[in-house]
Amino acid sequence: MSFAASRPSPQLNAEGELIHLITLEGLPREIITGILDRAAPFTEIAEREVKKVPLLRGKSVFNLFFENSTRTRTTFEIAAKRLSADVINLNINTSSTTKGETLLDTVDNLAAMQADMFVVRHASSGAPYLIAQHLANTGREHIHVVNAGDGRHAHPTQGLLDMYTIRHYKQDFTRLAVAVVGDVLHSRVARSQLHALATLGVPDIRVIGPKTLLPTGVERMIGPGRLRVFHDLREGLKGVDVVMMLRLQNERMLGALLPSPQEYFKSYGLTPEKLALAKPDAIVMHPGPMNRGVEIDSAVADGRQAVILPQVTFGIAVRMAVMAMLAGA
Amino acid sequence: MSFAASRPSPQLNAEGELIHLITLEGLPREIITGILDRAAPFTEIAEREVKKVPLLRGKSVFNLFFENSTRTRTTFEIAAKRLSADVINLNINTSSTTKGETLLDTVDNLAAMQADMFVVRHASSGAPYLIAQHLANTGREHIHVVNAGDGRHAHPTQGLLDMYTIRHYKQDFTRLAVAVVGDVLHSRVARSQLHALATLGVPDIRVIGPKTLLPTGVERMIGPGRLRVFHDLREGLKGVDVVMMLRLQNERMLGALLPSPQEYFKSYGLTPEKLALAKPDAIVMHPGPMNRGVEIDSAVADGRQAVILPQVTFGIAVRMAVMAMLAGA
Amino acid sequence: MSFAASRPSPQLNAEGELIHLITLEGLPREIITGILDRAAPFTEIAEREVKKVPLLRGKSVFNLFFENSTRTRTTFEIAAKRLSADVINLNINTSSTTKGETLLDTVDNLAAMQADMFVVRHASSGAPYLIAQHLANTGREHIHVVNAGDGRHAHPTQGLLDMYTIRHYKQDFTRLAVAVVGDVLHSRVARSQLHALATLGVPDIRVIGPKTLLPTGVERMIGPGRLRVFHDLREGLKGVDVVMMLRLQNERMLGALLPSPQEYFKSYGLTPEKLALAKPDAIVMHPGPMNRGVEIDSAVADGRQAVILPQVTFGIAVRMAVMAMLAGA
Repeated sequence: MSFAASRPSPQLNAEGELIHLITLEGLPREIITGILDRAAPFTEIAEREVKKVPLLRGKSVFNLFFENSTRTRTTFEIAAKRLSADVINLNINTSSTTKGETLLDTVDNLAAMQADMFVVRHASSGAPYLIAQHLANTGREHIHVVNAGDGRHAHPTQGLLDMYTIRHYKQDFTRLAVAVVGDVLHSRVARSQLHALATLGVPDIRVIGPKTLLPTGVERMIGPGRLRVFHDLREGLKGVDVVMMLRLQNERMLGALLPSPQEYFKSYGLTPEKLALAKPDAIVMHPGPMNRGVEIDSAVADGRQAVILPQVTFGIAVRMAVMAMLAGA
Repeated sequence: MSFAASRPSPQLNAEGELIHLITLEGLPREIITGILDRAAPFTEIAEREVKKVPLLRGKSVFNLFFENSTRTRTTFEIAAKRLSADVINLNINTSSTTKGETLLDTVDNLAAMQADMFVVRHASSGAPYLIAQHLANTGREHIHVVNAGDGRHAHPTQGLLDMYTIRHYKQDFTRLAVAVVGDVLHSRVARSQLHALATLGVPDIRVIGPKTLLPTGVERMIGPGRLRVFHDLREGLKGVDVVMMLRLQNERMLGALLPSPQEYFKSYGLTPEKLALAKPDAIVMHPGPMNRGVEIDSAVADGRQAVILPQVTFGIAVRMAVMAMLAGA
Repeated sequence: MSFAASRPSPQLNAEGELIHLITLEGLPREIITGILDRAAPFTEIAEREVKKVPLLRGKSVFNLFFENSTRTRTTFEIAAKRLSADVINLNINTSSTTKGETLLDTVDNLAAMQADMFVVRHASSGAPYLIAQHLANTGREHIHVVNAGDGRHAHPTQGLLDMYTIRHYKQDFTRLAVAVVGDVLHSRVARSQLHALATLGVPDIRVIGPKTLLPTGVERMIGPGRLRVFHDLREGLKGVDVVMMLRLQNERMLGALLPSPQEYFKSYGLTPEKLALAKPDAIVMHPGPMNRGVEIDSAVADGRQAVILPQVTFGIAVRMAVMAMLAGA
């Protein structure tokens, strides 16, 4: 009995194959590494004269963005177009839902247009799961759902591209110390990163941030004893191989959770001086968009250890891999 | 002399061929059934692995939406892309018209970009006709206009997909009783449906709604004696084969025309109990988006008699057929 | 030593080849006429059944519009699609920049998505140049920048399509009298036109407008003695071969610079009576969108001397030529 088959999940079919990508929590290691393996050749396509492969030709991919995100939508749009899919962008703030239609009616309608794939961004945690479940309940599990970020829950393609980046620079996950730094409380990115790091066997996982920006029970988030919590950035960075910075949402800075952006930068902003506490060859990651001078100093963002732009490049390849695998292509 | 040639119309050329699709009023039966016949094979393309045919390859289709409509725009965008056209989406609330340019200047400019087809949605009745006429006056009748909904006037592709749906489930129009239910007054959909039903020879056409939501002279809308008006939903539904529900626009519910959504539902909302008065195999249609609990009960919307999602699927095929016929492809 | 090589410019490489199109100021005559020559066959493609060539197949063109412009964005989108490129439209008012990301971070991110070309519209003069410089500084000069209008600085593709239009109707630039009329002060279009006219050797260049709408030092704008300034439209139009009208921005009409649209029309609006002062075969141009009854009378806009719609048609071909040349295709 395979590992995959022993873990029933809405994103795997009875054979343990990926049919949706909703979350990295509980996703088998074989699947994760399978996606990373599949992504590798796509990074080469992007350097060709003609950056296209016909794997999704004639397929209809719907970018269903219930929450605005030019950046993430663009990466999925490019990935789908490079796979030769037809891409339909739907920003649904201004559309039928404002006419009183329910989320599932919208999904039913788009499914009836013979969609092949929904890329879903939604402010509510669980919306992509709800959609996948609804498709299953109505006999349309041939339509694939990719979670492009839901509430505070998950952002699995971001987590995967981060793993791709770590593997690219550090190869073996089982020898690494990795720190996730910042506003973990509100971050779907952090949740996806932490689950993936655990599944891939990173032995030393650290979470660093002020108490007000860490979820209660963060210590047990990925299982007992799997991560350590630090409130002091300097202490937490000591000897790490990978620093994964999180974006501080502007709206947090105005709220009661933080004294001021300047104060935050003083304690938790990544400066060259603090980064020097990590291993000399440590890499610095950020999901973007960056707040320079808030969570990260420009000298670090533009420095030799930053791999923030390669993350973006790998992100296209990883999204191509996810879409190709879901489509069985 | 053919039937088509005997009816001069801005949407037919001298040979009686369709060059624009502006309205179903006066459109010859041969043309309507020709579109439905042409649509049939396109429903199969949508089930293929590669959902594309090269009929409009290298053609430029402009979606000119002067009124917001994600749903309708999306169906036209998919239809055009599956025909391999290049599609340009223009939401013109925020564009040149706000810079003081006239509608016809906008059209002239887009025509000068060598457009092949305009799909036009406009809040003003008659705008697509005006555009078609202007193109003819300026020697550019090779650019085709498809009305995607104009004011209260017409929504011909919706009417056609409704006819496709009825024919799919009921075959012979000449033996049917069909009821159109709801806010006929403000509905371009109802106008297109009623004209098509009459042209296709449906012997028993009924309109059901409160006096405040029926246009004056509704009895004579499609010629004297062609339809019957009911103000009581139960009475109107007796023995019908097809129930075509209309959407109740939210803005009507706030106005003086209606007491309240709850009151409306009580009198005109389609419930399983009221639907039981129709024939046992009656089908229920709705153009979407639905207001569940206002004009339609969820038990009906999701019930075995509803063909609301097949309408959407057929809508893509019908729009592909219209575009292919107009392009002479 | 070639003329091109003698003028170092951020838009030319060491071999004097065009790698970006930022401005027409200082652009060698050979390059300008080379673009016009390259555009000519593209006007024929547009009349074919299949309006596509595979020159940019598999390339990713990003329309980066930091300022809203449906019209210009559409022309670039069509041009890129007719070259078979993948086009990504980004309206960046509502996107990452509002999340506090800098312009150059946005550019870095899109470059990391393996963009091949940026078409940039920005409210700030110099933004496209800044982007081109940043790409050079970061070793990514293989990504090409096309300025689609920056502040009051330049709109080079508009200038080029205007030159294409003049050459189409008048052939030899070196025998012409050309007037640029209206709000030169705020017009990037006028700046691009005047530089191109000078480079192409037009001997009689005139600028006509009220003092409040001409920049200080307009006389020396394209070199000493190269143009004459008129404040009287009638006087300035005498004997010209080409009248290039400028759009009067609505916001100017409300400001302190002008008494009223009616007053402006009286003095500077182009009427048939004033146009009669130009040569009998003079052509009238306008970059659109027109304010009929403000800077131009409808009788002129729709008259036999207007070549305003051919300008739009030529604009697609010229933009195809620019993109193809930049891509080395």
